[in-house]
Amino acid sequence: MKIYGDSGSGNCLKVKWVCDWLAVPYRWIDVDTMKRETRTAQFLKLNPAGQVPTVEFDDGRTLAQSNAIIRYLARDSALVPADAFAAAKMDEWLFWEQYSHEPYIAVCRMQMVYLGKSTSDLDPDKVKRGYAALARMEQQLATTRYLVDDGITLADVALLAYTRLAHEGGFHLDGYAAIRRWIGESERALNLVPAG
Amino acid sequence: MKIYGDSGSGNCLKVKWVCDWLAVPYRWIDVDTMKRETRTAQFLKLNPAGQVPTVEFDDGRTLAQSNAIIRYLARDSALVPADAFAAAKMDEWLFWEQYSHEPYIAVCRMQMVYLGKSTSDLDPDKVKRGYAALARMEQQLATTRYLVDDGITLADVALLAYTRLAHEGGFHLDGYAAIRRWIGESERALNLVPAG
Repeated sequence: MKIYGDSGSGNCLKVKWVCDWLAVPYRWIDVDTMKRETRTAQFLKLNPAGQVPTVEFDDGRTLAQSNAIIRYLARDSALVPADAFAAAKMDEWLFWEQYSHEPYIAVCRMQMVYLGKSTSDLDPDKVKRGYAALARMEQQLATTRYLVDDGITLADVALLAYTRLAHEGGFHLDGYAAIRRWIGESERALNLVPAG
Repeated sequence: MKIYGDSGSGNCLKVKWVCDWLAVPYRWIDVDTMKRETRTAQFLKLNPAGQVPTVEFDDGRTLAQSNAIIRYLARDSALVPADAFAAAKMDEWLFWEQYSHEPYIAVCRMQMVYLGKSTSDLDPDKVKRGYAALARMEQQLATTRYLVDDGITLADVALLAYTRLAHEGGFHLDGYAAIRRWIGESERALNLVPAG
């Protein structure tokens, strides 16, 4: 299996983490989104949506969308609850992440890290919605160890990707003790080197 | 089961359509998002994210995020492929819908239908990205009957919700023959009254 990904992208790292955790072998192929390498004719054959991560299996089949990829790779593992309703709560977090978290926290980070903006250049509405997403997570993590009850699932993998880098987008986690506790626990559970 | 939803919202209608198709009984409870009825203390107890649709099962458990809800309700039905890879391709479309389609096509429609904007008031970048989403769908539907091969799945349910209303957001489907064909077929397969 090949993972086409940008190593600075949390969405891409989700796939790497899950493969490493599952001990699934893969070849990582760097794709630089800032150089528009996702828009070449060659890449668009792999994924007409022109987005990373995209994975290509040995038989040539391809799959895109970070959360769809990790859901497929981890489908028979402990990262996906066997109970259907618990899996549905995991899915609720996965969809929420892409709609209500990533477009604010990851996008602010992208603008600061890759476009050189400062916090005062950020769209105040995006900052406000980013903090609203953090508040939603804090509320959950103050009552459960992980996002879906007490075992780590793909919900934690997906939310960890950009939450651990939120400070790079100008977000302060000082008032979010449960999130900070959860970042440490999730990083240890996934055998990750803590984010700087 | 109770469905808390706004009948003008495609995201909410997805849940209704799947319940009707599965013949799952439910009580529809109207929640007017424009009147901020999703922000009351009572509603936030059901869904701390303050979003519709939210479903409440008879035992009091709740589930949010339209695509997570329909994935749970339809999990053992013909709307979810039994083959794991085909289900993953369905998931790819579900996540893509929420990230690359809904924020442009549904948001332009919301601004025109509910906020009274005209097409010239719309953010040109949102319009451009909306048409890019339509082009991606057209490309797929020119080669397969439905989005995941030749049988209807939740991918079609999810994308149908706002694509059939795209004209209300100022999008013209004249150049998208495969999408128009697919809207008709999907509406018939789901026993829907065609959108005006």
